Amino acid sequence: MRILGIDPGSSVTGFGVIAIEGGRLSLVEAGALRLKKSEHLPLRLREAADRLGEVIARHRPDEACLETVFQHLNVRSALVLAHVRGALMVELTRGGIPLHEYTPLEIKKALVGYGHADKEQVRVMVGKLLRLRTLPRPTDVSDALAVAVCHAHVRAVRRRWEGS
Amino acid sequence: MRILGIDPGSSVTGFGVIAIEGGRLSLVEAGALRLKKSEHLPLRLREAADRLGEVIARHRPDEACLETVFQHLNVRSALVLAHVRGALMVELTRGGIPLHEYTPLEIKKALVGYGHADKEQVRVMVGKLLRLRTLPRPTDVSDALAVAVCHAHVRAVRRRWEGS
Repeated sequence: MRILGIDPGSSVTGFGVIAIEGGRLSLVEAGALRLKKSEHLPLRLREAADRLGEVIARHRPDEACLETVFQHLNVRSALVLAHVRGALMVELTRGGIPLHEYTPLEIKKALVGYGHADKEQVRVMVGKLLRLRTLPRPTDVSDALAVAVCHAHVRAVRRRWEGS
Repeated sequence: MRILGIDPGSSVTGFGVIAIEGGRLSLVEAGALRLKKSEHLPLRLREAADRLGEVIARHRPDEACLETVFQHLNVRSALVLAHVRGALMVELTRGGIPLHEYTPLEIKKALVGYGHADKEQVRVMVGKLLRLRTLPRPTDVSDALAVAVCHAHVRAVRRRWEGS
């Protein structure tokens, strides 16, 4: 079972693929898709979609999840981000990958236990749960892994409930 | 020379393909891509992109243009619309079609001559310029044709300047 987590951004989109085997999580690949801010938006969107398509082809994730962040952004930035998310969503749906969304609050609660955890605490938990020797950087990558781990957690809890 | 005009919407996206031959404009095809509002957003985006892909395959437009409207929308609706635009932009860019954007003000100025024209005046001008027997409806379709006609006008003016 492989989960692809994505932290979409207008210039950097973090992605992280994790595997779940027997309740244990492990890192498969994580990285950042960097887009040229100077480039015309439609070309940037295509680049993001193409690069995500390569990640999908490489790892064939069973499910994908996106972080949903629009607060703390001005209207213009939020609109650009929404364009990027739209482009990525089409790529995921065409890959036949079910898509889930989580807010930063849900991710922090799932990983650290409370919604006011800071980014560094989330990053440390991602490192622990995936048993990484070094913590993932930049934050786009650790945030993408965080949403993947959050989804793995939610799935596990749901299965326990359904099984009980 | 064929121009594809698009008026993107979260539930209805209007499109219109026009041809320019010897300075005369004519309608090739116009219609509306209707999306189920009840459906999960990623699936709606994919549907919109796929359907636009069919229009592109059918008519092989040389250039495309989008109406850019975010005013008069609440933040949530604007964000959904931006997702749809992102999905459509990737489809156009993958089709190798140069993309231009126009605001409602630019479209009204190009078609009617002043920016405070109402929607009905724009629709009437679209009908006249394309020599249509009946005016296109719904407004999503006439707005898509309006942006295509606006782009044809801007291209013609630009060529006159470049030629003089």
